[in-house]
Amino acid sequence: MDIISLLNSRKSIRKYTAEEIPDNLLNDLFTAASRASTTGNMQVYSVVVTKNLENKKLLAPHHFNQKMVTEAPVVLTINADFNRFNKWCELRKAKPGYDNFLSFMTAAIDALLFAQNFCVAAESKGLGICYLGTTIYNADKIIEALKLPRGVVPITTLTVGFPAESPDLVDRLPLEGLVHYEQYNDYTPEMIDQIYFQKENLDETARLLEENQMETLAQILAHRRYTKETNEVFSEKLINVLKTQGFLNL
Amino acid sequence: MDIISLLNSRKSIRKYTAEEIPDNLLNDLFTAASRASTTGNMQVYSVVVTKNLENKKLLAPHHFNQKMVTEAPVVLTINADFNRFNKWCELRKAKPGYDNFLSFMTAAIDALLFAQNFCVAAESKGLGICYLGTTIYNADKIIEALKLPRGVVPITTLTVGFPAESPDLVDRLPLEGLVHYEQYNDYTPEMIDQIYFQKENLDETARLLEENQMETLAQILAHRRYTKETNEVFSEKLINVLKTQGFLNL
Repeated sequence: MDIISLLNSRKSIRKYTAEEIPDNLLNDLFTAASRASTTGNMQVYSVVVTKNLENKKLLAPHHFNQKMVTEAPVVLTINADFNRFNKWCELRKAKPGYDNFLSFMTAAIDALLFAQNFCVAAESKGLGICYLGTTIYNADKIIEALKLPRGVVPITTLTVGFPAESPDLVDRLPLEGLVHYEQYNDYTPEMIDQIYFQKENLDETARLLEENQMETLAQILAHRRYTKETNEVFSEKLINVLKTQGFLNL
Repeated sequence: MDIISLLNSRKSIRKYTAEEIPDNLLNDLFTAASRASTTGNMQVYSVVVTKNLENKKLLAPHHFNQKMVTEAPVVLTINADFNRFNKWCELRKAKPGYDNFLSFMTAAIDALLFAQNFCVAAESKGLGICYLGTTIYNADKIIEALKLPRGVVPITTLTVGFPAESPDLVDRLPLEGLVHYEQYNDYTPEMIDQIYFQKENLDETARLLEENQMETLAQILAHRRYTKETNEVFSEKLINVLKTQGFLNL
């Protein structure tokens, strides 16, 4: 399959067969992932591989007990990581200046390009993956579970395994909703109607409205799934994590 | 070429031929990129395409006048974007609660998975790309240049075109430096020596030490390229951007 077709047909996979991922395959995927772009070739990221069921069970509650955390053969926690780089600096008569917000973002970017490259590589080998957005909600607990030192913040988590399901392709917004030319062309109400027309008219949307007894899909997302209250609780936690892990000197 | 080989042979490309990127190719790449995972299928990102030379010249100084900004046929500024989603909520009787740091990170993650998927798709079609880390240094100026509204923060920039150079593959750290099993295995001085051995013994490193008249490669990175002083200046700017763009209510 060519790469564009692979990307166009990808789906998040949440159910996996019992088949293990061979160590040499996992290493090949990490190597390919590590070719992703990185600021100044510093590679300020790291990954913790969880295969042991006991350790998956330690992580699961911090991911709201989503079943794939314990069921996937491999769970990867991918971190913004200046710890290794800082230690290197200190051993080489250099003073690291990375205890600030810019450095956190630099490392988070590195981590995410690595993560996405890993996903493409994994999918090309027949594996399925699912991202867990909960990582930044409960970064404090994940830091404890994985013993991440100062300078390290988990950014995302991937569950990985051979697929035991083949879900339908989910919808995406039309490109007009995502792409601007030369300058940002802010949305009028008519444009918003058009961009969301397809999504709002899916059978799946009708099902969700019925199930949630709500009037609009936006209400389901804003008032039930990703609410102001929970966003604020998790924002405060995450800002504290940046402080305790040494990224908010400035 | 299989995907793993494509990923393993990738290089950042900073010089491009004069050949334009056909619109239909660019659209195909955006479509493939938009299949990347996204939190709650909210797709809270956007991209601004800059092709016009005058507009590239407006962006160039904010990227430290790196030549590829004006020389690449296409410059893509990829944004964390809750503006469209917020407008949709407001038009659908939903109260958006996304003026906080967690939402910024959610959107930044979405933007970066889209960006990296775009890169893999582009490279599979013979294009070359280069990421510009300067985007988060001068986000304030880029917001001005591209007229990005509240709710939108530029996260990264890609220059894209057909390659007019074929640089050598750059080094990467061995996997032992990046991958941990079950728990984070913090680095001893001996491990640091081993992880950085290859990098410190490259001909390129010897050349850089000579050119910079410095004793260690870590000093070049920490005292010249990515210094505490500039990191702190850009951290302060970036935190202010998050405030003015409406992401630090909490």
